[in-house]
Amino acid sequence: MKRKRKGSAGSFKKSAEKLVEEILAGERAALAQAITLVESNAEHHFETAQHILTKLLPHSGSSVRIGITGVPGAGKSTFIDSFGTYLCNEGRRVAVLAVDPSSKVTGGSILGDKTRMERLSKNPHAFIRPSPASGTLGGVARKTRETIILCEAAGFDWILVETVGVGQGEFVVREMVDFFMLLVLTGAGDELQTMKKGIMELPDLVVVNKADGNNLERAKAAIHEYQSILHFLKPYTAGWETTAVPASALYEKGIKEIAQSVQDFIEETENSGILQERRTSQQKEWLHEMIKEQLHYMFMKDEHISKLLPRYEQKVLSGDQSVSLSVRELMNLFFSKRKQL
Amino acid sequence: MKRKRKGSAGSFKKSAEKLVEEILAGERAALAQAITLVESNAEHHFETAQHILTKLLPHSGSSVRIGITGVPGAGKSTFIDSFGTYLCNEGRRVAVLAVDPSSKVTGGSILGDKTRMERLSKNPHAFIRPSPASGTLGGVARKTRETIILCEAAGFDWILVETVGVGQGEFVVREMVDFFMLLVLTGAGDELQTMKKGIMELPDLVVVNKADGNNLERAKAAIHEYQSILHFLKPYTAGWETTAVPASALYEKGIKEIAQSVQDFIEETENSGILQERRTSQQKEWLHEMIKEQLHYMFMKDEHISKLLPRYEQKVLSGDQSVSLSVRELMNLFFSKRKQL
Repeated sequence: MKRKRKGSAGSFKKSAEKLVEEILAGERAALAQAITLVESNAEHHFETAQHILTKLLPHSGSSVRIGITGVPGAGKSTFIDSFGTYLCNEGRRVAVLAVDPSSKVTGGSILGDKTRMERLSKNPHAFIRPSPASGTLGGVARKTRETIILCEAAGFDWILVETVGVGQGEFVVREMVDFFMLLVLTGAGDELQTMKKGIMELPDLVVVNKADGNNLERAKAAIHEYQSILHFLKPYTAGWETTAVPASALYEKGIKEIAQSVQDFIEETENSGILQERRTSQQKEWLHEMIKEQLHYMFMKDEHISKLLPRYEQKVLSGDQSVSLSVRELMNLFFSKRKQL
Repeated sequence: MKRKRKGSAGSFKKSAEKLVEEILAGERAALAQAITLVESNAEHHFETAQHILTKLLPHSGSSVRIGITGVPGAGKSTFIDSFGTYLCNEGRRVAVLAVDPSSKVTGGSILGDKTRMERLSKNPHAFIRPSPASGTLGGVARKTRETIILCEAAGFDWILVETVGVGQGEFVVREMVDFFMLLVLTGAGDELQTMKKGIMELPDLVVVNKADGNNLERAKAAIHEYQSILHFLKPYTAGWETTAVPASALYEKGIKEIAQSVQDFIEETENSGILQERRTSQQKEWLHEMIKEQLHYMFMKDEHISKLLPRYEQKVLSGDQSVSLSVRELMNLFFSKRKQL
């Protein structure tokens, strides 16, 4: 099957070098190609992708990284379309990435993303990349983190990472961005009941979207409600008060103020050192999370383990054997088998 | 060093059998001894402890498991003293356990627990056991879970697991109990700001303690505040509304009502099947958490890894090498070394 590789390792390296150069020159096709390599699960792409990443790492890190989430129907796409277009008009280069662990089911949303963000997708200063189409949440997160690095090296200075609010996506995205935004609708009470546990404690800004037309009064009430909740919660970022603000993505109201709020945040946290601290701890956490995930992956894909694990689960659930003893036996099995390799 | 074992494996097994019998007969000395075995980190105690646990597992599971937490000063000890004594007077047998990952610093709190719960510690129907004196939070949790099994086998039918609110203790205890109680003081606003993220979403009941004397009006206000927060949060247990209620542990007010509330909860969740579901998923989760923890432990204690990991952390933080490549290299190191053993 090795024949499937095109060319030798030598020409691979050469093409990797070429990609690096082109990405640094801001070429979108090269960026897209490198992201595909990073997203690939094929073993023979790993080396090339890592070669590119290592070269680009020194050129990354200087963007504003923003996470955006919200309940379905909160108008995330329209908001990102407005927000991103505004930023581009202000001279920014904007990359939009998505973390959507559910897309393995729907088969990705490439077409969806283009249609969803009509104006932004045509903007020469914007780059929209749908979520990696498969993998565990940890895997999807790794790909998105590495894609952020590639986009930054390509000169994109505002990275918007969208998460659709499935599973633990918000928590994972919170761990890879500087600033986190929660998009909500009017009617806080009902909405909060449907939100996942802990979500309200993640954002640096709550945006009450669709604050327009007949909705204006309800939006005001929602802002009041969210403010009173936020008053009781500990802000995610020490020294930064999370507030609720109105916006109308449709009528482009509040967009400028939100961009300003992000700017203020970056300035303040840069001065206080919190931003650098956050990035350092995110990086360290990422390393340790990936170690844990990889160890678990190696364990779960082990032939013997995958055969015997259900039996142990059964024993534990029926009360025939303690958890400790089961774990002990499974560990012996896993590591002793490896010794014989 | 094997000589340190007293007697042969045979007599060990015999004494284990004896402990099992005595525990099932409700003998406290035997229970205490078995807990010490379960808490021991000595390798040669593991087998005996597991032998006992396996024998007792079929006799466990029939208690009401309650987690209790609260900010320092909320009056947890006085509350447990009152609550436990009330339950004993109602014909219950009450075991009080503690999860306190910080006790390795303070060197345990055996004396503390006896003094803290003066009445209960003298009650013949109660059994108070301080937290295991050392270990990781996961280790402490394992010991507490196994101690619950031992206490249940010894006939204790209400298990109160206290957590001091250090680190992630609350989340760990929530995962081993049926019902979770949060003790708070008056002055919700200030207090909530000092609480850890996500704590308010764990309890099935919020108890505003010290609702007595001059404090009565403030307690009423606090209940109102907590109720309005709870209104916005998703209850931890589907179908059960988490409410805030007043109590005075000192004057023994509200204690009976709280016990009744727990009874109602158990009845409702038993009927709906949620209780059984919760216990099954806790058990399964426990197995998988312990597998992950154990894998990570094996990795971290590996000589090569512990020598090289700081270097990799440095490379990742300085941007010299990607996280993925670092993890790949660490995994190769860990597993290839093992192959050679």
